[in-house]
Amino acid sequence: MQTKAVWKDGMTFEVQLDGHHIVIDAMPEHGGRDLGPRPKGLTVSSLVGCTGMDVISILNKMRQEVTAFEVAGEAQLADEHPKRFTAIKVIYRVEGEINSEKLKHAVELSEDRYCGVSATLRPSVELTSEIWLNGQRLVD
Amino acid sequence: MQTKAVWKDGMTFEVQLDGHHIVIDAMPEHGGRDLGPRPKGLTVSSLVGCTGMDVISILNKMRQEVTAFEVAGEAQLADEHPKRFTAIKVIYRVEGEINSEKLKHAVELSEDRYCGVSATLRPSVELTSEIWLNGQRLVD
Repeated sequence: MQTKAVWKDGMTFEVQLDGHHIVIDAMPEHGGRDLGPRPKGLTVSSLVGCTGMDVISILNKMRQEVTAFEVAGEAQLADEHPKRFTAIKVIYRVEGEINSEKLKHAVELSEDRYCGVSATLRPSVELTSEIWLNGQRLVD
Repeated sequence: MQTKAVWKDGMTFEVQLDGHHIVIDAMPEHGGRDLGPRPKGLTVSSLVGCTGMDVISILNKMRQEVTAFEVAGEAQLADEHPKRFTAIKVIYRVEGEINSEKLKHAVELSEDRYCGVSATLRPSVELTSEIWLNGQRLVD
């Protein structure tokens, strides 16, 4: 797996990944022009995207009718440099005609078995999750 | 720090980060349409983008004249699920009128002190780096 960040000018870089391009940039107070997101948050985007794809794929295989789905990530950072991620909460919000036990199982399968980003981060970051189905929080 | 992956259809998600949008998607063999990169590699993009911004910023402060700069990331994944990252090599390629010791110091400052993504990954991923200046590899 390869990726590359190519400097354009100022604090702007073009990230190349899987044949696609993403612009990243700093905020004006750090010399940038905000032409794209900051790179650090992409770690959390990677996590929520990875588990999101797992879960939608598993729910499809379970023949559950998903009408809306999003996965949010809320990250805590260390106060001092290096400002590493200390904790990330992943919040699954799903709507549709879905069996709640199947949904919980789909999330567990991603967290424990499939999501390589979770598995990479877990030794150093406190990972927690919440599941909401049709506006109601599911509890274990 | 917050981010969100919003499911569009198929395996396509729109990632929201810092007020910007990135499309991620799976390959056709996994039910996607390749409308954007896979989410997993964004972890490595985050790492190379983060350290890239550190290094260009430090070189600017050191008044070094950078004419071209890119940071590549080459990642190894576990063979079995969950396919976590096991090793990432970060390759800095810099061109310009730059003092090689200052460049090495800039990279060290990012790796050891500033880059929160490196600090997050280091406990679980073997991180190594190479520095190339005007086509020549710098050695320690």
